[in-house]
Amino acid sequence: MTFDPSSLKYDDKGLIPAIAQDADSGEVLMLAWMNAASVAMTLETGKVTYWSRSRQSFWIKGESSGHVQKLVDFRYDCDRDCILVTVNQMGPACHTNRRSCFYTAVRDGETVELMQPEV
Amino acid sequence: MTFDPSSLKYDDKGLIPAIAQDADSGEVLMLAWMNAASVAMTLETGKVTYWSRSRQSFWIKGESSGHVQKLVDFRYDCDRDCILVTVNQMGPACHTNRRSCFYTAVRDGETVELMQPEV
Repeated sequence: MTFDPSSLKYDDKGLIPAIAQDADSGEVLMLAWMNAASVAMTLETGKVTYWSRSRQSFWIKGESSGHVQKLVDFRYDCDRDCILVTVNQMGPACHTNRRSCFYTAVRDGETVELMQPEV
Repeated sequence: MTFDPSSLKYDDKGLIPAIAQDADSGEVLMLAWMNAASVAMTLETGKVTYWSRSRQSFWIKGESSGHVQKLVDFRYDCDRDCILVTVNQMGPACHTNRRSCFYTAVRDGETVELMQPEV
């Protein structure tokens, strides 16, 4: 069936959460948000494109940092209200220069830092 | 540092998205929502516990289906506004009886079903 970006379920701000996962390692890199137009742009260009809630503008991941995400596979969930993109990540995904944004764990009630910024 | 569930950033409904990933395979299984109390319950019990937006109640994953998620690691992201739990998933994670909720891909503009319900 032909896919229509408007067939996904967006929240009251017109946004849907999108999980980015490294296509090779399986590591979960980050979660950001897309609107219907950024879904279409991601599929058309193969460059993962979010909607920046803080800047209220399209956010072609890595456009300024060079840390682009090349789309490998685009998936959505059973409720059509969440996206999973598997990607080839150039450089670190996180703005702190860490490989993944999920670098803090909670273990035995204490926070533990799991990875350092890349140099 | 001691972790305080209230230190995470919740949206205007008091919720934070939580990604569940299979600790062994690395497969992304689902995304659901937690509030501060369900974060605390998850950490205390080791049973992943969401907040059901449709039922407006705690949702101890698998409590009725038996498809429980045993917490392996609890992580949160750089912005403190998204959670990643790695889990031991008993049975399928998806209510459709598929291993993962992300069983539909978009390839060359067409939707493709990637996995079948388990029997």
